[in-house]
Amino acid sequence: MTDGRIHLNGMKTFAPAHTAPGLWRHPLSQAHRYRELGFWVRQAQMLEQGFFDSLFITDGLGVLDIYRGTAEAALREGLQTPVDDPLLVISAMAAATARLGFVVTVSCTYEQPYALARKLTTLDHLTDGRIGWNVVTSALDSAARNLGLTEQLSHDERYARADEFMEVVYKLWEGSWEEDAVVADRAAGVYADPAKVHPIGHEGAWFQVPGMFLCEPSAQRTPVICQAGASPAGRAFAARHAEEVFVSGQRPDIVRAIVDDIRGQAADCGRDPRSLKFVTSMTVVSAPTAAEAHAKLDDYRSFASVEGNLARLSGTVLVDIGQLDLDQPLEYVETAGIQGIMRNFTIADPARRWTPREIGDFMKVSGYGPLAVGSPAQVAGELERWAEEADLDGFNIPDVLPPATFADFTELVVPELQRRGRVWPDYEGATLREYLGEPGQPRVADNHPAARYRAPKGFSQLPAEDPGRRSTR
Amino acid sequence: MTDGRIHLNGMKTFAPAHTAPGLWRHPLSQAHRYRELGFWVRQAQMLEQGFFDSLFITDGLGVLDIYRGTAEAALREGLQTPVDDPLLVISAMAAATARLGFVVTVSCTYEQPYALARKLTTLDHLTDGRIGWNVVTSALDSAARNLGLTEQLSHDERYARADEFMEVVYKLWEGSWEEDAVVADRAAGVYADPAKVHPIGHEGAWFQVPGMFLCEPSAQRTPVICQAGASPAGRAFAARHAEEVFVSGQRPDIVRAIVDDIRGQAADCGRDPRSLKFVTSMTVVSAPTAAEAHAKLDDYRSFASVEGNLARLSGTVLVDIGQLDLDQPLEYVETAGIQGIMRNFTIADPARRWTPREIGDFMKVSGYGPLAVGSPAQVAGELERWAEEADLDGFNIPDVLPPATFADFTELVVPELQRRGRVWPDYEGATLREYLGEPGQPRVADNHPAARYRAPKGFSQLPAEDPGRRSTR
Repeated sequence: MTDGRIHLNGMKTFAPAHTAPGLWRHPLSQAHRYRELGFWVRQAQMLEQGFFDSLFITDGLGVLDIYRGTAEAALREGLQTPVDDPLLVISAMAAATARLGFVVTVSCTYEQPYALARKLTTLDHLTDGRIGWNVVTSALDSAARNLGLTEQLSHDERYARADEFMEVVYKLWEGSWEEDAVVADRAAGVYADPAKVHPIGHEGAWFQVPGMFLCEPSAQRTPVICQAGASPAGRAFAARHAEEVFVSGQRPDIVRAIVDDIRGQAADCGRDPRSLKFVTSMTVVSAPTAAEAHAKLDDYRSFASVEGNLARLSGTVLVDIGQLDLDQPLEYVETAGIQGIMRNFTIADPARRWTPREIGDFMKVSGYGPLAVGSPAQVAGELERWAEEADLDGFNIPDVLPPATFADFTELVVPELQRRGRVWPDYEGATLREYLGEPGQPRVADNHPAARYRAPKGFSQLPAEDPGRRSTR
Repeated sequence: MTDGRIHLNGMKTFAPAHTAPGLWRHPLSQAHRYRELGFWVRQAQMLEQGFFDSLFITDGLGVLDIYRGTAEAALREGLQTPVDDPLLVISAMAAATARLGFVVTVSCTYEQPYALARKLTTLDHLTDGRIGWNVVTSALDSAARNLGLTEQLSHDERYARADEFMEVVYKLWEGSWEEDAVVADRAAGVYADPAKVHPIGHEGAWFQVPGMFLCEPSAQRTPVICQAGASPAGRAFAARHAEEVFVSGQRPDIVRAIVDDIRGQAADCGRDPRSLKFVTSMTVVSAPTAAEAHAKLDDYRSFASVEGNLARLSGTVLVDIGQLDLDQPLEYVETAGIQGIMRNFTIADPARRWTPREIGDFMKVSGYGPLAVGSPAQVAGELERWAEEADLDGFNIPDVLPPATFADFTELVVPELQRRGRVWPDYEGATLREYLGEPGQPRVADNHPAARYRAPKGFSQLPAEDPGRRSTR
């Protein structure tokens, strides 16, 4: 933790179920309203009332079809399938809020950088700088098969391509339009000064993008870069690019090891390791008293689905748990590909050999992450403990039962966190990047790799140091 | 015209200037506010007050860089560059309106059908069925160069690919999810019935899409299909697929010939030729009296840009008019590639040999299309005359000077059209398709090609007649 503040993001996916399969069945759940504009607008307004930094929307273009080799469980559970496109609901929420940020997941594996840069800049324009991009490289074969890739790229190829993808979008966002390129001078009849708009001339192994960026600069130019990969390639990518890093683990010391590793790698890249904000998912079930909160959790658990959790876990670890004996302890398959997630569970209780059913039961309500249940003071204390022990800057709060989860958190936990000086009394700064860093600094830090591609003033008169920078003249 | 009603669409692009270059300089223009949510929301609300069918947003991923071989004129004019992504502003306008439809231009040349189908369904969900898709195949080389195509596909290849693209999206929209696939049964714990969700198993020349659609059905399933191509391949495409066709020409008889041709081809495809709605762009400058309207036009013309119009025309006809003598009559280049548009001007006044400068001057305010200027009664009469003589169903009204253009039309012309029974007293039906056809019919007509891919009830029990239809069982 760099200061006293705990950063908060609401976390959702654009589907009936996500981290808490089965809870859509709860009589109070409105999760089935995921296709309605009013549902999203109301959720965003609640988060803004709770002074959350952002709403973080995860996404995937594939279906969970590893479990038993079909998508049947996913469909029955409404689990990440059906799934709509999160980019398209943001402007409605932005129009109904003034400060809340929006972090949206877009895979760079199925996009062209030239088109994706325009999408994110459009949203940064429409929100006046409240946009973050969770960069993913996509792991589900079912997505690759349907999107024109005859075979999925290897894990390392995906990250190599992603690195070049970032180079291209940084050039478009930071280097193509000079700061004063748009003059909008009615008398002179000049909207943009062509001498200050530059083709990026990118020629790489994966992408050729000769032209200038289609969009004029937005408040942040580069949106806040977020990343969640836990593999060695994912951590190295986060250390180079991410301003907000999503990490996971069942115990603070497990998470701490990841945070320390990535902060160290970031320092090796010449970045201030404290400029990276680390956030983990923490499911919160809160009520005015501890007894009420535990009763609420018991109620929620009674609707949770073991099969939904196992289908989700199968999609994450890429092992068909439906083929295993659900009551056989899992040790014997540990070498068969179930790595990070399973190790997580094992390490959380080293003496225990879990069966798949026990894991599915353990995941009820809280999914892969930890659970904070109790009174506002108990929940606030647990968040503080995690932030301290794991060196975290904040938390993603999964929306396990809309609208109760965000409403409870905003009404009960946020005031307690404010009393403790952990949540600010009001937003400071105007852009998402300012919420994570400092008011008055809406642009990437000078030591962020995107800054390398900045168009200086008088850019076209300077000698070209970088083949990516060319003048139109 | 099939009935008395004249269909109206507001027409905009997500840029400072579009059909009327230079008018952003007018002191009353708010065109420079194109990046602001509030600007779009207000425009949409005005159109809804005028009972427009839709707001139609054009788009292109390239820059106008044919004129003098650079984008300099386009940048100075803010002419279709800079340009933001129109898909992303729709949900904000939808949240602020209840009935207005939204037609959005997306090129199928740079998209995968699996991903684009999800985008449009997401918008159809969020708007409850108010979405139309203007299918374009993209002509600007500058877009192809930046989007990973080392060379632009030929015109005919683009349309062949587009036909298969439509087949894939129709299968996803109409055939993958049966009508009653989503049960959302809390007691049984079934969100969707997996037996009623089918992989489409598409294997074609351009696309392989084995999987099921990611989204549950929306109100319209297939969005309203719109198309604007005037080439032989474009007209054939419109005859097969389009429900709303955008045609252009400077005289009603020129437009009539195109309308007759496409209606005839549609009949040959087994479609009801009257089920295709034909619309042309008509720039309208209206005021309470004819004298005031002509004074307003003179004022607008004084801000219009000849160079902007020639830069736009160069991008359309793919000839660098900046290389020509602006005062030399154009006959001698007619064979050099300037075809449809130029012929339009020539035919409009057969005796006249236009110079480029005269064309640029003629295009002031109204661009390629006709102009209706006058009192509300005069404008209404001109729209009625065109609808009658060209067999048109309606008009796209370009937003030449926001917010005055839509405000004038809604406040002055619409009441006059309502008096004449040409604009309805209120919306009938809930979806864009119903506005164009009949209330109660939100889905594609039975003789539309999309209907061929409909999943019947009990689909998975039927023998597979079409290799595109497979059961998950």
